[in-house]
Amino acid sequence: MARLETISDFQHQMAAIYGDRDAERGIARTFAWLTEEIGELSRAIFRGSHEMRVEEFSDVLAWVSSLAEQAGIDLEDAVQRYADGCPRCGFTPCDCE
Amino acid sequence: MARLETISDFQHQMAAIYGDRDAERGIARTFAWLTEEIGELSRAIFRGSHEMRVEEFSDVLAWVSSLAEQAGIDLEDAVQRYADGCPRCGFTPCDCE
Repeated sequence: MARLETISDFQHQMAAIYGDRDAERGIARTFAWLTEEIGELSRAIFRGSHEMRVEEFSDVLAWVSSLAEQAGIDLEDAVQRYADGCPRCGFTPCDCE
Repeated sequence: MARLETISDFQHQMAAIYGDRDAERGIARTFAWLTEEIGELSRAIFRGSHEMRVEEFSDVLAWVSSLAEQAGIDLEDAVQRYADGCPRCGFTPCDCE
Protein backbone atom coordinates (compact mmCIF):
# COMPACT_ATOMS: atom_id res chain seq x y z
CA MET A 1 0.00 0.00 0.00
CA ALA A 2 1.02 3.63 -0.45
CA ARG A 3 2.56 5.68 2.37
CA LEU A 4 0.09 6.65 5.11
CA GLU A 5 0.13 10.43 5.14
CA THR A 6 -3.15 11.91 6.32
CA ILE A 7 -4.69 11.35 9.72
CA SER A 8 -7.80 10.04 7.93
CA ASP A 9 -5.76 7.56 5.86
CA PHE A 10 -4.29 6.25 9.08
CA GLN A 11 -7.66 5.91 10.84
CA HIS A 12 -9.16 4.13 7.80
CA GLN A 13 -6.19 1.78 7.57
CA MET A 14 -6.50 0.92 11.28
CA ALA A 15 -10.21 0.21 10.79
CA ALA A 16 -9.44 -2.02 7.79
CA ILE A 17 -6.82 -3.99 9.71
CA TYR A 18 -8.40 -4.11 13.18
CA GLY A 19 -12.04 -2.99 12.86
CA ASP A 20 -13.62 -6.46 13.11
CA ARG A 21 -11.47 -7.42 16.06
CA ASP A 22 -12.13 -4.07 17.79
CA ALA A 23 -15.89 -4.52 17.43
CA GLU A 24 -15.66 -7.97 19.05
CA ARG A 25 -13.47 -6.69 21.89
CA GLY A 26 -15.54 -3.62 22.64
CA ILE A 27 -14.60 -0.15 23.73
CA ALA A 28 -13.85 -0.83 27.42
CA ARG A 29 -11.29 -3.53 26.66
CA THR A 30 -9.83 -1.42 23.85
CA PHE A 31 -9.30 1.34 26.40
CA ALA A 32 -7.57 -1.14 28.71
CA TRP A 33 -5.24 -2.12 25.86
CA LEU A 34 -4.44 1.54 25.21
CA THR A 35 -3.34 2.00 28.81
CA GLU A 36 -1.10 -1.06 28.51
CA GLU A 37 0.49 0.51 25.41
CA ILE A 38 1.02 3.76 27.30
CA GLY A 39 3.06 1.77 29.80
CA GLU A 40 5.11 0.25 26.98
CA LEU A 41 5.65 3.73 25.57
CA SER A 42 7.02 4.85 28.94
CA ARG A 43 9.49 1.97 28.99
CA ALA A 44 10.58 2.70 25.40
CA ILE A 45 11.05 6.43 26.04
CA PHE A 46 12.98 6.15 29.29
CA ARG A 47 14.75 2.82 28.88
CA GLY A 48 14.50 1.80 25.21
CA SER A 49 16.12 2.23 21.83
CA HIS A 50 15.03 4.48 18.96
CA GLU A 51 13.50 1.43 17.25
CA MET A 52 11.44 0.60 20.35
CA ARG A 53 10.23 4.20 20.49
CA VAL A 54 9.15 4.09 16.83
CA GLU A 55 7.22 0.89 17.56
CA GLU A 56 5.54 2.10 20.74
CA PHE A 57 4.57 5.55 19.43
CA SER A 58 2.97 3.92 16.39
CA ASP A 59 1.21 1.35 18.59
CA VAL A 60 -0.21 4.09 20.83
CA LEU A 61 -1.52 5.92 17.76
CA ALA A 62 -3.02 2.65 16.49
CA TRP A 63 -4.94 2.09 19.73
CA VAL A 64 -6.08 5.71 19.95
CA SER A 65 -7.36 5.33 16.39
CA SER A 66 -9.20 2.07 17.16
CA LEU A 67 -10.78 3.71 20.17
CA ALA A 68 -11.80 6.80 18.16
CA GLU A 69 -13.34 4.60 15.49
CA GLN A 70 -15.47 2.82 18.10
CA ALA A 71 -16.39 6.11 19.77
CA GLY A 72 -17.55 7.63 16.47
CA ILE A 73 -14.79 10.25 16.37
CA ASP A 74 -13.02 11.34 13.17
CA LEU A 75 -9.51 12.14 14.41
CA GLU A 76 -8.62 14.42 11.50
CA ASP A 77 -11.73 16.51 12.15
CA ALA A 78 -10.95 16.49 15.88
CA VAL A 79 -7.44 17.94 15.54
CA GLN A 80 -8.74 20.97 13.65
CA ARG A 81 -9.12 22.48 17.14
CA TYR A 82 -5.37 23.15 16.80
CA ALA A 83 -5.40 24.49 13.22
CA ASP A 84 -5.40 28.14 14.30
CA GLY A 85 -3.10 27.87 17.32
CA CYS A 86 -3.64 26.95 20.95
CA PRO A 87 -7.39 26.31 21.45
CA ARG A 88 -7.28 28.08 24.83
CA CYS A 89 -5.37 31.29 24.10
CA GLY A 90 -5.56 31.32 20.30
CA PHE A 91 -1.83 32.01 19.88
CA THR A 92 1.14 30.32 18.17
CA PRO A 93 3.26 29.87 20.19
CA CYS A 94 0.87 29.26 23.07
CA ASP A 95 0.65 32.20 25.46
CA CYS A 96 -1.47 30.58 28.19
CA GLU A 97 -0.54 31.27 31.81
CA MET B 1 -4.26 28.35 8.97
CA ALA B 2 -5.21 25.65 6.49
CA ARG B 3 -6.79 22.38 7.57
CA LEU B 4 -4.37 20.00 9.32
CA GLU B 5 -4.38 16.89 7.16
CA THR B 6 -1.13 14.98 7.32
CA ILE B 7 0.37 13.48 10.43
CA SER B 8 3.49 15.56 9.79
CA ASP B 9 1.48 18.78 9.49
CA PHE B 10 -0.04 18.01 12.86
CA GLN B 11 3.29 17.26 14.54
CA HIS B 12 4.82 20.45 13.11
CA GLN B 13 1.85 22.51 14.23
CA MET B 14 2.09 21.09 17.75
CA ALA B 15 5.82 21.94 17.82
CA ALA B 16 5.08 25.48 16.65
CA ILE B 17 2.42 26.00 19.33
CA TYR B 18 3.94 24.08 22.25
CA GLY B 19 7.60 23.34 21.39
CA ASP B 20 9.15 26.03 23.61
CA ARG B 21 6.95 25.13 26.55
CA ASP B 22 7.60 21.40 26.05
CA ALA B 23 11.35 21.94 26.05
CA GLU B 24 11.08 23.82 29.37
CA ARG B 25 8.85 21.16 30.92
CA GLY B 26 10.94 18.18 29.77
CA ILE B 27 9.98 14.73 28.66
CA ALA B 28 9.17 13.17 32.05
CA ARG B 29 6.62 15.83 32.95
CA THR B 30 5.21 15.74 29.42
CA PHE B 31 4.65 12.02 29.90
CA ALA B 32 2.88 12.72 33.19
CA TRP B 33 0.56 15.17 31.39
CA LEU B 34 -0.19 12.57 28.74
CA THR B 35 -1.36 10.12 31.39
CA GLU B 36 -3.59 12.80 32.87
CA GLU B 37 -5.12 13.32 29.42
CA ILE B 38 -5.66 9.56 29.08
CA GLY B 39 -7.76 9.77 32.24
CA GLU B 40 -9.78 12.64 30.79
CA LEU B 41 -10.28 10.60 27.61
CA SER B 42 -11.69 7.76 29.69
CA ARG B 43 -14.18 10.09 31.36
CA ALA B 44 -15.20 11.57 27.99
CA ILE B 45 -15.67 8.16 26.36
CA PHE B 46 -17.64 6.52 29.14
CA ARG B 47 -19.44 9.49 30.69
CA GLY B 48 -19.13 12.41 28.29
CA SER B 49 -20.68 14.03 25.25
CA HIS B 50 -19.55 13.84 21.64
CA GLU B 51 -18.01 17.31 22.02
CA MET B 52 -16.02 16.20 25.07
CA ARG B 53 -14.76 13.18 23.13
CA VAL B 54 -13.62 15.38 20.22
CA GLU B 55 -11.73 17.56 22.68
CA GLU B 56 -10.09 14.73 24.62
CA PHE B 57 -9.09 12.67 21.57
CA SER B 58 -7.44 15.74 20.05
CA ASP B 59 -5.72 16.55 23.35
CA VAL B 60 -4.32 13.03 23.63
CA LEU B 61 -2.96 13.30 20.08
CA ALA B 62 -1.45 16.69 20.95
CA TRP B 63 0.40 15.27 23.97
CA VAL B 64 1.56 12.18 22.06
CA SER B 65 2.90 14.53 19.39
CA SER B 66 4.70 16.74 21.93
CA LEU B 67 6.25 13.65 23.47
CA ALA B 68 7.31 12.29 20.07
CA GLU B 69 8.88 15.61 19.18
CA GLN B 70 10.96 15.56 22.36
CA ALA B 71 11.88 11.89 21.85
CA GLY B 72 13.09 12.56 18.30
CA ILE B 73 10.35 10.48 16.66
CA ASP B 74 8.64 11.45 13.40
CA LEU B 75 5.12 10.11 13.89
CA GLU B 76 4.29 9.93 10.19
CA ASP B 77 7.38 7.81 9.56
CA ALA B 78 6.55 5.69 12.60
CA VAL B 79 3.05 4.72 11.44
CA GLN B 80 4.40 3.33 8.16
CA ARG B 81 4.72 0.08 10.13
CA TYR B 82 1.00 -0.26 9.42
CA ALA B 83 1.09 0.72 5.73
CA ASP B 84 1.07 -2.89 4.50
CA GLY B 85 -1.27 -4.39 7.10
CA CYS B 86 -0.78 -5.75 10.61
CA PRO B 87 2.96 -5.54 11.43
CA ARG B 88 2.80 -8.90 13.19
CA CYS B 89 0.91 -11.11 10.68
CA GLY B 90 1.15 -8.93 7.58
CA PHE B 91 -2.57 -9.25 6.77
CA THR B 92 -5.50 -6.87 6.32
CA PRO B 93 -7.67 -7.64 8.18
CA CYS B 94 -5.33 -8.81 10.92
CA ASP B 95 -5.15 -12.61 11.18
CA CYS B 96 -3.07 -12.87 14.38
CA GLU B 97 -4.09 -15.53 16.90
